[in-house]
Amino acid sequence: MKRFGVSLEDKVLFSFDKYVKDKGFSSRSQAIADLIKNELVKEQWTKNETVAGAVLFVYDHHKRDIVDKLTSLQHCFIKIIISTQHIHLDHNNCLEIIAVRGKAVDVKKLTERIKIVKGIKHISLSMSTIGKSIK
Amino acid sequence: MKRFGVSLEDKVLFSFDKYVKDKGFSSRSQAIADLIKNELVKEQWTKNETVAGAVLFVYDHHKRDIVDKLTSLQHCFIKIIISTQHIHLDHNNCLEIIAVRGKAVDVKKLTERIKIVKGIKHISLSMSTIGKSIK
Amino acid sequence: MKRFGVSLEDKVLFSFDKYVKDKGFSSRSQAIADLIKNELVKEQWTKNETVAGAVLFVYDHHKRDIVDKLTSLQHCFIKIIISTQHIHLDHNNCLEIIAVRGKAVDVKKLTERIKIVKGIKHISLSMSTIGKSIK
Amino acid sequence: MKRFGVSLEDKVLFSFDKYVKDKGFSSRSQAIADLIKNELVKEQWTKNETVAGAVLFVYDHHKRDIVDKLTSLQHCFIKIIISTQHIHLDHNNCLEIIAVRGKAVDVKKLTERIKIVKGIKHISLSMSTIGKSIK
Repeated sequence: MKRFGVSLEDKVLFSFDKYVKDKGFSSRSQAIADLIKNELVKEQWTKNETVAGAVLFVYDHHKRDIVDKLTSLQHCFIKIIISTQHIHLDHNNCLEIIAVRGKAVDVKKLTERIKIVKGIKHISLSMSTIGKSIK
Repeated sequence: MKRFGVSLEDKVLFSFDKYVKDKGFSSRSQAIADLIKNELVKEQWTKNETVAGAVLFVYDHHKRDIVDKLTSLQHCFIKIIISTQHIHLDHNNCLEIIAVRGKAVDVKKLTERIKIVKGIKHISLSMSTIGKSIK
Repeated sequence: MKRFGVSLEDKVLFSFDKYVKDKGFSSRSQAIADLIKNELVKEQWTKNETVAGAVLFVYDHHKRDIVDKLTSLQHCFIKIIISTQHIHLDHNNCLEIIAVRGKAVDVKKLTERIKIVKGIKHISLSMSTIGKSIK
Repeated sequence: MKRFGVSLEDKVLFSFDKYVKDKGFSSRSQAIADLIKNELVKEQWTKNETVAGAVLFVYDHHKRDIVDKLTSLQHCFIKIIISTQHIHLDHNNCLEIIAVRGKAVDVKKLTERIKIVKGIKHISLSMSTIGKSIK
């Protein structure tokens, strides 16, 4: 850990202290670290660094061929897929969560490819980090 | 399936057809369904309906007590947690993905609570759907 | 101005210093203040405080009645509208920017109302601040 | 105007009709056009096309040199700046809204440059369109 000084205008600091308390952070440092790390992770995605994240999608498994198509597709992206979690939401709907690690553009490409598979109801991409440079 | 007519200005339709082709959608209908479902899922989260999603976070498991804290916390939210996927990113870093189903506010509360656990490096919430009303 | 100490893990600080330099901030304090103020402004909008901002929209002024409708509508929201800037983008297209100050929900309501006026091509809401609590 | 047929699953159409009514759109076509245009405008920004928008920022005009700096900076970007609207929020705070038209990257660069001027409290970029391809 390194310690350094920060200057803030009185009113901003006052509002920030209220924010830190409201959110339940244990200190200004923790809240500032949270903001900084969020920003650094955004940059990692913008600059196409190696990232981690999850591709999450919902579909009806009765849709013809969809399970085959999704499986084949995932095999094409085997280098960036870590593992897949499959949840039976109800009789028809499946929620699948693919944990990924790789270049940001490849993860985005996988998302784009799944998005256009017929029968996909919703897809979202969760952008996180491998944690290294923000240890 | 229901079929209905849509009117669009010539230039918008021209640009949209280009978009449909560029993205790889198989038809205008598929691309429009994608936009509509995205919007409906956003509304489900805004209106605090029952939703599905994933809370994804990265942490260093060496951080004192963090595994215990995260486990206890998840037990408090047992009603909305479906299952958890744990990935060892490297010697220090863990990626954990909690699949959730429940009221949108409860999912957001879980995210807020994990966010302030000491040692969390990054957290993101992936907002999806149980798929019912958008079958 | 108030000065206080912040603790950050070495690697985060290293990455952050790179970020500060890349973006052109003059100091860590300036970059941290930027992140904090952004977060505080987001909170002001979430908590429905008094905010400032701009509603920006593009339309074809040839569209029947659109100018009348937009003018009437703005008069209904006279309490939150400061002034309007009108730009002739080309022979057909107008860009109008309404500077607003008021409760966040009222600004959002104005945006929703303009969005559904026939002939509006695009609308976006810029969420800013009256600057008081973040002086 | 062009008319074409769209197929949607029953439940999605049912939910969408509710959405169309709730939001106050006059027809499915209007709501679909709104979603499509939003998506096309996003693409225009991603693909660095010629766009329109607004850079909105708040500052304390008492801050030393800030007015000079902001003026000089705007002159460097004279090619993309259409006009500027200045609002006196209170004794100290100014809200300035620059209407812009130009390549998306240049507009973003202007935003980045203003963001780091000392004394800027908040800046936001409103991404819109020149309206041409989405007439």
